[in-house]
Amino acid sequence: MTRIEDVARLAGVSTATVSRALRGLPTVSEATRTRVLLAAEQLDYSASPSASRLAGGKTGTVAVIVPRITPWFVGAVVEAAEEVLHRAGYELLLYNIGGREHARQRLLHRANLPKRVDAVMLVATPMGPDDLATIASLALPGVTVGSGTVVPGWPSVRIDDQAAGRTATEHLLGLGHRRIACVWGDPADEYAHPAHLERRRGYQEALNALGVVPEPRLSVANRPDAEGGRRATEELLSRGDPPTAIFASCDEMAMGAVNALRTAGVRVPQEISVVGIDNHDLAGAFGLSTVAQPAAEQGQLAAGTLLGPLAGRSRTDGEPTPVILPTWLVARDSTGPPRED
Amino acid sequence: MTRIEDVARLAGVSTATVSRALRGLPTVSEATRTRVLLAAEQLDYSASPSASRLAGGKTGTVAVIVPRITPWFVGAVVEAAEEVLHRAGYELLLYNIGGREHARQRLLHRANLPKRVDAVMLVATPMGPDDLATIASLALPGVTVGSGTVVPGWPSVRIDDQAAGRTATEHLLGLGHRRIACVWGDPADEYAHPAHLERRRGYQEALNALGVVPEPRLSVANRPDAEGGRRATEELLSRGDPPTAIFASCDEMAMGAVNALRTAGVRVPQEISVVGIDNHDLAGAFGLSTVAQPAAEQGQLAAGTLLGPLAGRSRTDGEPTPVILPTWLVARDSTGPPRED
Repeated sequence: MTRIEDVARLAGVSTATVSRALRGLPTVSEATRTRVLLAAEQLDYSASPSASRLAGGKTGTVAVIVPRITPWFVGAVVEAAEEVLHRAGYELLLYNIGGREHARQRLLHRANLPKRVDAVMLVATPMGPDDLATIASLALPGVTVGSGTVVPGWPSVRIDDQAAGRTATEHLLGLGHRRIACVWGDPADEYAHPAHLERRRGYQEALNALGVVPEPRLSVANRPDAEGGRRATEELLSRGDPPTAIFASCDEMAMGAVNALRTAGVRVPQEISVVGIDNHDLAGAFGLSTVAQPAAEQGQLAAGTLLGPLAGRSRTDGEPTPVILPTWLVARDSTGPPRED
Repeated sequence: MTRIEDVARLAGVSTATVSRALRGLPTVSEATRTRVLLAAEQLDYSASPSASRLAGGKTGTVAVIVPRITPWFVGAVVEAAEEVLHRAGYELLLYNIGGREHARQRLLHRANLPKRVDAVMLVATPMGPDDLATIASLALPGVTVGSGTVVPGWPSVRIDDQAAGRTATEHLLGLGHRRIACVWGDPADEYAHPAHLERRRGYQEALNALGVVPEPRLSVANRPDAEGGRRATEELLSRGDPPTAIFASCDEMAMGAVNALRTAGVRVPQEISVVGIDNHDLAGAFGLSTVAQPAAEQGQLAAGTLLGPLAGRSRTDGEPTPVILPTWLVARDSTGPPRED
């Protein structure tokens, strides 16, 4: 079993510094903390839960609240956050609450979270004003991951979803497309997330910038998954006069769109191009062009922001600045120049 | 807020029966329990954690141990199990331990599980003999999901992976294929699961039954994900004299295989057919032929087996019989008759 002394030796610091670094205390510089974390990872070292608990937290546990665990983004964020939290000696209580009013009610009003956990991470979970007031009243440290939910006093980690939508659409515009459809996550769906709305804004913005007026009949909302993307695209095709390209507000919907096109005998990208957002694990296998977002990094960073408060360090410097990670285009086989009608 | 009386009225039973049914007590018939669960779901009712805790468990918490949360099967099982456990008033502690020796060590030897949880669910997590001995010594009720890990005294829920491999291969044989490659999860990989080995046995068995000798050069192992499937298929193509069909030991590998073929300009299924196992969420969008397994049902059933022990009911009837759920062929566009060479 690796001891704290081994980590200290490899990182070239004292054991006290290793302990402070792993607990997120403010007296350690970012450079030193990074060196300690790398050494801990290399040596497969993790703090013991009891040590961390003595150091600050009361339960040694962090609540991670998600809408569902199966969407790609949520799984990738939770997996990465869990690695950071476990290494620092904390356990992870998982709550799926999306689409289930009873789960939301129970979690916020009956589960007595402050007795069970030391901090809360909200992953891509939209919350109404009432829920947010309840969360604020829990007086727990926390962090949000993903657009759309802001809890006063909590750090947030996300991408610029509107910019991602713009980048995806500009890719299609750059290829020469002008009649570009938008297949996007229906805000009325129980699992929909404000990110879809933001990404659609980016799509509209990119079109407007070129003086292209988005046609309402080319915009179809449905459930934000592969099945929803398939249905939205079938609906789009049934309206006649099809576009030359489709912007989908997430990769799962984009893959469903490609499937609907292939099933209808439409060649991708020769007849219709498709671009998504995410760079889902399977986007490469699918040959899907997309705007990539760093999901694991969002989970790691979000977990990292909790380590300080968990160690009993209180923040005093006002409202935290959102951490916004970059996105980038990954062009694959599903996009190409428009067909000539 | 829905009350227990409302559930009792809808289910046509007493409130005591509702309580017993949701807690998994043995005095309730399966038919009644199903009626109560349906009523609870319809009315969005869940037991309060404190009630369940008074009823039996000490911490109100179940540990769910997974290799990673991102693979499709694991996410689907955990999501479904969490719904059942939350409805019965239990929380879920999530442990990702695959591929990380420190996590495994800490969980089994330092986390003091019996003080933190009332029961354990092991999902698709291979365990060595030493780990299994440690788990047995915890003296906690538990359940395993997926092939390959047997804990004495614990129920297990899984599919017959060998039969699934046989069904997939028989589908290809039935289409007329004889030169069938096997792209499968490398047992040496840190995330590999014994299910891949079992599925490959089914492949060999199906070939043998028709007097076809599996060619060693047509069998390629790699990481059990889309990237591994892609690499294995590239390796297969580089050996020359390609097969007319590929059996992949999971859908993620199968999608990677299809990608490698398309990238190499090989038409699927006209030149090479591909079949997987799982019926992954995206298999439909991918047009992938596969052998489906009911993942959510495995999670629900596994969680259900814990409700009795959690309520303080001790089992007395010897080693539990494994619960083995059926699998079935879903033929889509990735398989067809062999090409004529």
